[in-house]
Amino acid sequence: MILILSRQAHPNDIETLMKRLDWMNLRASLSEQNGQKSLAVVSGMNKQVQIEEFAALPLVEKVLPFTQPYKLASKDVRRERLCIPIKDIQIGGKELAVMAGPCSIESAEQMNTIAAQVKKAGANILRGGAFKPRTSPYSFQGLGEYGLQILAEAGEVHNLITISEVMDAEQIDLVGRYVDILQIGARNMQNYSLLKKVGRSEKPVMIKRGFSSTYQDLLMSAEYILHQGNPHVILCERGVRTFENYTRNTLDIAAVPVLHQLSHLPVIVDPSHGTGIREMVVPMARASVAAGADGIMVEVHNEPEKALSDGIQSLYPEQFEKLMISLKQMAPVVDREIL
Amino acid sequence: MILILSRQAHPNDIETLMKRLDWMNLRASLSEQNGQKSLAVVSGMNKQVQIEEFAALPLVEKVLPFTQPYKLASKDVRRERLCIPIKDIQIGGKELAVMAGPCSIESAEQMNTIAAQVKKAGANILRGGAFKPRTSPYSFQGLGEYGLQILAEAGEVHNLITISEVMDAEQIDLVGRYVDILQIGARNMQNYSLLKKVGRSEKPVMIKRGFSSTYQDLLMSAEYILHQGNPHVILCERGVRTFENYTRNTLDIAAVPVLHQLSHLPVIVDPSHGTGIREMVVPMARASVAAGADGIMVEVHNEPEKALSDGIQSLYPEQFEKLMISLKQMAPVVDREIL
Amino acid sequence: MILILSRQAHPNDIETLMKRLDWMNLRASLSEQNGQKSLAVVSGMNKQVQIEEFAALPLVEKVLPFTQPYKLASKDVRRERLCIPIKDIQIGGKELAVMAGPCSIESAEQMNTIAAQVKKAGANILRGGAFKPRTSPYSFQGLGEYGLQILAEAGEVHNLITISEVMDAEQIDLVGRYVDILQIGARNMQNYSLLKKVGRSEKPVMIKRGFSSTYQDLLMSAEYILHQGNPHVILCERGVRTFENYTRNTLDIAAVPVLHQLSHLPVIVDPSHGTGIREMVVPMARASVAAGADGIMVEVHNEPEKALSDGIQSLYPEQFEKLMISLKQMAPVVDREIL
Amino acid sequence: MILILSRQAHPNDIETLMKRLDWMNLRASLSEQNGQKSLAVVSGMNKQVQIEEFAALPLVEKVLPFTQPYKLASKDVRRERLCIPIKDIQIGGKELAVMAGPCSIESAEQMNTIAAQVKKAGANILRGGAFKPRTSPYSFQGLGEYGLQILAEAGEVHNLITISEVMDAEQIDLVGRYVDILQIGARNMQNYSLLKKVGRSEKPVMIKRGFSSTYQDLLMSAEYILHQGNPHVILCERGVRTFENYTRNTLDIAAVPVLHQLSHLPVIVDPSHGTGIREMVVPMARASVAAGADGIMVEVHNEPEKALSDGIQSLYPEQFEKLMISLKQMAPVVDREIL
Repeated sequence: MILILSRQAHPNDIETLMKRLDWMNLRASLSEQNGQKSLAVVSGMNKQVQIEEFAALPLVEKVLPFTQPYKLASKDVRRERLCIPIKDIQIGGKELAVMAGPCSIESAEQMNTIAAQVKKAGANILRGGAFKPRTSPYSFQGLGEYGLQILAEAGEVHNLITISEVMDAEQIDLVGRYVDILQIGARNMQNYSLLKKVGRSEKPVMIKRGFSSTYQDLLMSAEYILHQGNPHVILCERGVRTFENYTRNTLDIAAVPVLHQLSHLPVIVDPSHGTGIREMVVPMARASVAAGADGIMVEVHNEPEKALSDGIQSLYPEQFEKLMISLKQMAPVVDREIL
Repeated sequence: MILILSRQAHPNDIETLMKRLDWMNLRASLSEQNGQKSLAVVSGMNKQVQIEEFAALPLVEKVLPFTQPYKLASKDVRRERLCIPIKDIQIGGKELAVMAGPCSIESAEQMNTIAAQVKKAGANILRGGAFKPRTSPYSFQGLGEYGLQILAEAGEVHNLITISEVMDAEQIDLVGRYVDILQIGARNMQNYSLLKKVGRSEKPVMIKRGFSSTYQDLLMSAEYILHQGNPHVILCERGVRTFENYTRNTLDIAAVPVLHQLSHLPVIVDPSHGTGIREMVVPMARASVAAGADGIMVEVHNEPEKALSDGIQSLYPEQFEKLMISLKQMAPVVDREIL
Repeated sequence: MILILSRQAHPNDIETLMKRLDWMNLRASLSEQNGQKSLAVVSGMNKQVQIEEFAALPLVEKVLPFTQPYKLASKDVRRERLCIPIKDIQIGGKELAVMAGPCSIESAEQMNTIAAQVKKAGANILRGGAFKPRTSPYSFQGLGEYGLQILAEAGEVHNLITISEVMDAEQIDLVGRYVDILQIGARNMQNYSLLKKVGRSEKPVMIKRGFSSTYQDLLMSAEYILHQGNPHVILCERGVRTFENYTRNTLDIAAVPVLHQLSHLPVIVDPSHGTGIREMVVPMARASVAAGADGIMVEVHNEPEKALSDGIQSLYPEQFEKLMISLKQMAPVVDREIL
Repeated sequence: MILILSRQAHPNDIETLMKRLDWMNLRASLSEQNGQKSLAVVSGMNKQVQIEEFAALPLVEKVLPFTQPYKLASKDVRRERLCIPIKDIQIGGKELAVMAGPCSIESAEQMNTIAAQVKKAGANILRGGAFKPRTSPYSFQGLGEYGLQILAEAGEVHNLITISEVMDAEQIDLVGRYVDILQIGARNMQNYSLLKKVGRSEKPVMIKRGFSSTYQDLLMSAEYILHQGNPHVILCERGVRTFENYTRNTLDIAAVPVLHQLSHLPVIVDPSHGTGIREMVVPMARASVAAGADGIMVEVHNEPEKALSDGIQSLYPEQFEKLMISLKQMAPVVDREIL
């Protein structure tokens, strides 16, 4: 249930109320929108708890039930879209979040070259994998901490926010020391132990949809993170598995308006993994933005044919530049009111 | 194989060559682009036929093999995109084809009202089903010929081109008498008897992708029509079946750039059936256009809650109007060069 | 609704009742099990019709609603499984229906050889395609009527019932003249024009599940046939499309117990198309029988490597013989009570 | 590459050879079948390594390449099926492995009751979850270590081997202290950090196929475990996600013969999660055994309607008893020669 609090409620009173809930074994989290504070009571509810009793409390204006199995990720607790401020940008705000960079971090030189190129074209976030979840144990598994150092340095030099994947609870602190956004990969979307642990991190977390996870599965996984106290969750559509295998995955762009309807969390689209074909990345990035995505994640490599992973789907820097020009032309046309 | 003909070849010589091929039991179809004529020999080839012999013929400049199992639908026979002229519009040209109207034709009054609304908003093609393929034998099966009369009249009054589904070989002549474009529905995409027969019609044919058909399956079905001599085939993406059932189907927008890469045929997207949810139609229509679609097919109904079929996914006329305004703003941004 | 009739009801009275229903525009079909007659009123129902009125009629003992969107195909009209007698065998009875033979009918000699082999091994139904639904217009399309003659003759010589596909309404009479069971292929499962027309045939019809059709879709298609008056419908599971493409399709054996739970119609499994790999046919045929299938359909070819279609999934006659031995050993173990 | 060693090779010589490979940075693992020893060199290979050089070594009889991306999981290193001995049973041997028990361990009393029942009916392995991967953070997450104690005790009292899921690297030691087989759940099938760590455990590991993982994905995940030195990997098919949602998943029984063709590892089928419907568990368990499965995993609960998870798919003890009787009748019929 959600307790909508009186606008007159004093912080001290709210604290007292929360202590009382705590004493009743009810876990509540406070949120505020447009000056209206509310307490979402997500767990500890059972048949003994009488909802009417809460409605009668002096601070409480209204008691609302949750309408979805995910609670903190739903619109029940927050009608308006969430903006996540990270350094000088805001994910979920008016400006598009453009995450670009190589699949794997390969060397300081490579990273520096690509960072300069994507920054110049208009990206605001630098991506690069240091720990790579590879289907084969014999494939390149990433440079590890050394890769993170390279990424952090390139981010600093080129004034780009950074994002990198964390595959394991043991890596959270390490990755968090170097990058601005922690990424949970599609294969770990339902690794609940990992989700709980990033839920206790201070860093924003971007969670990729598993390749056969429903929208609800994705929101339930986001809920695991939110429930641990981390409010900064970004959702990422990256394609689902279907019978069609001309493309690597089938990019489900409808995820953008659907997730925006079900949740207040920002939605990013990754057309690189979503199609697996370089030529398809630009049209699908454009389509994602036209459907209202809060940003895109795109693989860019200065020498895709030499890339240690995913070269076939990486854009050449010139292609990325053209994409950015095209997206800037589209920006004024993306009317959030009709989306 | 494709015989690229000399630019000096006289029509009479070409006719003689075709007769000779015919005598050899080789079926050839003549096409021309940029003044360059060529003969596509699609069937009758066997091991006795020596490709070298043809290269030696006086009219023949070059002999090229087919690189795909679909031949006439491929880029092998035609590099540039096909424009299909229908009355005063061109499908596959610069202007977007906007097919709008109700799922089923219900009455002359309904059709007239909707036709006026979609025309005013900017649609150029009027849709409406007279023969409806319904999962249940107990559902409304359409008004039949009477429906076609209503559609034709509304098209004429409002100066809109018309499209309607043909489910059965026996209906081809009848439907063809009333409408401008014959539609093959997703469930009949591999009804090869029907495909062969519309292949002998004079009318352009729009073929919808089956809900678990691959891109290649769709192109092979187009090939059935082309092979019978009808060059005017329009492809339509309308969503595929996946594990996700929040939406009615998963709209595969990547079909647009992929089909454009593989084929010269125009590609339309139907976001109404592709999502099955009214709120998702506008963002997905926009996404389709941003990805380079040659047009969209959208269900619009003046009173969706009273519609005899598919009301839940039909736009209100005002929503359609907003969509058209948004698409017009997008038009100058859709840069075909980068798509 | 279903009108359960009094056991005392005289045929003349029933006829009078049916006429009365007819006059009310209600379409009813009479059925009987264990001596209990009932009338299933499947269409014409609307809000004007008061169910209570029917309950009050003298012949009517009880009025039951339909619980499923399919009506005649459901267990509502018939609790016990349907047995379809065809010449000297019964499909849906104790004996397994074993349909075997080549994918395409190629020659009288081939058919005769294979028929002799499968008969000797224990098959009771001979399969072979004369009209072939091929993805490519350039592939072998079948021998047509000449193929049907060959099939009929081989069936007669070897005392085997015959089954062959009908792709087109125009072929129904022709195919019906030569074979005992009409087959509707997976690609035509939702070709409703065709379904209606085989629904008016006297011949039993086997309908294959479309490769992305749900159980309910399949039963709704069966309903189209039943609704036209043909009670002899056989369902066939032949694999669905999934992301896994090592096998040609994913054979959904759970279809057997599920369809048996939802419907009284017999269920056959085709492991040849369901896997597309010769080595997988035997284990999957065994699995189908263990799950309670009423029969199997298996491709057998004397020279699979020379087959004009589907050679890769056709069993060698010796493999088929081993399969039959194995199925005979399993037969006494297939306890229908626990299935 | 695989180095097939001379039968005369002395253990000391082999050790010397392995040291030499190690010095070359080549990781090799020794295996033996039918007295024939071989060394599988799975990593460290690069273009500098000349395969011919190895063929010339005195101990080496033959050098074979790997034919699959998975190496240690393939038939290249081991033609015959692997038997995994655990206490007094063998998984992959002639006797069927029957894993039965509740979804979650709920109490000592519940576990004791169920263990007695399944043991009596013929199960040889006791299952029960102590750490539960639940889609919702608000669902019952398992009893943790206390649950493991209960499971271990019930296993000991009733002389049953035990299996339980490990969700997290930190739990491996703990779970390993109490149970005989570690289970990796479908959602963690590509949690490579976890796979590497169970690869260093002494305990056999059963890995469940992810619900949209291909056969190759599953074998690659098994490879992660094998590569770390743990040779005792059991594969488990538990259903994949498709468009059909009448059943919880689509149980892909063809996985059994396919995985047996590609790999020497034993294959278990879980019809409880694979169908999600109690009535379908028995026919699908039978089908799995008929297709050649090395065992089944089945949820059994004494009071399914009160179960804390998955009650709807749990068998009643009497149903399990009937299943076991039916499987025992089938056993002599399961002819491994034709499977």
